[in-house]
Amino acid sequence: MYYLGIDLGGMSIKAGVCDINGNIIYKSSVPTVRTEDGDRVVKDMAALCLDVISKAGLTVEDIAYAGISSPGTADPVDGIIVYACSLPFLNYPIAEKLSALTGISKIYVENDANAAAKGEATVGAAKGYKDSIMITIGTGVGGGIIIDGKVYSGFNFAGGELGHIVIVHDGAPCSCGRNGCWESYASASALISQTREAMKAHPESFMWQTVGSLDKVDGRTAFEGAENGDATAKQVIDRYISYLACGLVNIINIFQPEVLSIGGGVSNAGDALLLPLIDIIKREQYSRNSPKQTLIKIARLGNDAGIIGSAMLGL
Amino acid sequence: MYYLGIDLGGMSIKAGVCDINGNIIYKSSVPTVRTEDGDRVVKDMAALCLDVISKAGLTVEDIAYAGISSPGTADPVDGIIVYACSLPFLNYPIAEKLSALTGISKIYVENDANAAAKGEATVGAAKGYKDSIMITIGTGVGGGIIIDGKVYSGFNFAGGELGHIVIVHDGAPCSCGRNGCWESYASASALISQTREAMKAHPESFMWQTVGSLDKVDGRTAFEGAENGDATAKQVIDRYISYLACGLVNIINIFQPEVLSIGGGVSNAGDALLLPLIDIIKREQYSRNSPKQTLIKIARLGNDAGIIGSAMLGL
Repeated sequence: MYYLGIDLGGMSIKAGVCDINGNIIYKSSVPTVRTEDGDRVVKDMAALCLDVISKAGLTVEDIAYAGISSPGTADPVDGIIVYACSLPFLNYPIAEKLSALTGISKIYVENDANAAAKGEATVGAAKGYKDSIMITIGTGVGGGIIIDGKVYSGFNFAGGELGHIVIVHDGAPCSCGRNGCWESYASASALISQTREAMKAHPESFMWQTVGSLDKVDGRTAFEGAENGDATAKQVIDRYISYLACGLVNIINIFQPEVLSIGGGVSNAGDALLLPLIDIIKREQYSRNSPKQTLIKIARLGNDAGIIGSAMLGL
Repeated sequence: MYYLGIDLGGMSIKAGVCDINGNIIYKSSVPTVRTEDGDRVVKDMAALCLDVISKAGLTVEDIAYAGISSPGTADPVDGIIVYACSLPFLNYPIAEKLSALTGISKIYVENDANAAAKGEATVGAAKGYKDSIMITIGTGVGGGIIIDGKVYSGFNFAGGELGHIVIVHDGAPCSCGRNGCWESYASASALISQTREAMKAHPESFMWQTVGSLDKVDGRTAFEGAENGDATAKQVIDRYISYLACGLVNIINIFQPEVLSIGGGVSNAGDALLLPLIDIIKREQYSRNSPKQTLIKIARLGNDAGIIGSAMLGL
């Protein structure tokens, strides 16, 4: 059998057919056209699904189930998107609708960070481990909790919001309405702001040579500067890693998962990120004297995490 | 059948026989005599167990199992106290030893905050709910996580250290080695320090009249002052509740449990604590627009949480 994964995003809908090991047989995408209700999005999604199944040389009968990775809050029990940020879904029965349009009888739906965590746990960095956490560092900081192989999201499916743990009481405002959330200090957006501020304060920084202007700054700028020996960039990275580590140690002290994997664009920095992070974690975690300690890994599924994670939801 | 609960502490060992509803039939205690190894403690514990069983009018055959609530890290799978803070236990096979001395064949062992959470989940404030969290506010801030009716403590049994979530990056030093832990701001000890500091800065405070000197300050002082209209006391309470709420909202955003119960001495403040806490939580939690929200409750088992919680470990 094959598994269809659908990554629903604000800009595009991606779908792919996967085998049981999470290998993508064929994938494609269409832009997300936002109208007032969700029906147009689901119609486009259904056409995309049937197209990728056909292009993969398969029929609907070959598909064990489909999984949908959605922003916001999804109710996997009733197959409903409860709320999806910038998309026109409010208590929308997406599983039922997509099933009617495609003939795929079983459809799972899950929050995107949770689906990515399920993907890493099933065929990625946390494969073979029962309890794992995945952090996705992008515009925000997303979190997914896997306990005993299953997504844990609480009784209202809104849990796992690990980016919205306050690490600076009365700190910087967060989009969630609180002040001082981890996301406000450890997201890629936060790193970009921190880089820009440091550049403004340090006109001599090498980073000005690499990017030219502040609007060209991205999540790699400070890492590249530090690699080239720029002191300002090094300070930005040290401070950013201190914030990131703070939240990761919090999560370890709470969950003591077997694996904590880090995904999203910033994770492409690889060892320049991972090694100093592990150094702080080893020193600060409550379990630092325990023989069994959480493995810190870079996530493996990259940009396909949404497709593969949602395709693995039923496994 | 009956259930024997044992609350192992640094000062005393308490034991009680409970019925299936967590009612204590008979309980007693002995001082904890600390020698170089744990054998003396277990010998005293065994004698206490046999004594309370006998005084309850029962025999060992009437006891379904015994449960031990221990400080530090306990391995419930192998019945071992891995490490117990100020007690002489290091990878100590307490279940096997106590079983040999008492004839009770099944013995559970669990960290004290986890056992208290299991007690609240089984017969206390979270009875009838599958997912709940209990916070114990005392010298420190302890946490216990119940998922699907069972204690969750991670793959090395050291999880659930909810007091050791940093809420003030680079903040006040914590006994765990980190800076800015929730425990350093929201424990009863922290409240006492905050009260003393405010009194030093405000010689006109009504609190001086109620306690006379700084060494008489306890966790009730500021609550009593605020009740009597003292502005300094009110400020202390508002600030303390802001720290406490910060950590509670963090926990809700992570777990979205059905019930979050608050125990320990500070919880005796009742509505003076609970109502302003709920007010902040309702405003700040990620799920504030969800129809299903975590219930915030005062824990019900009080000083008997250790006995009752450990007696409920097998249920």
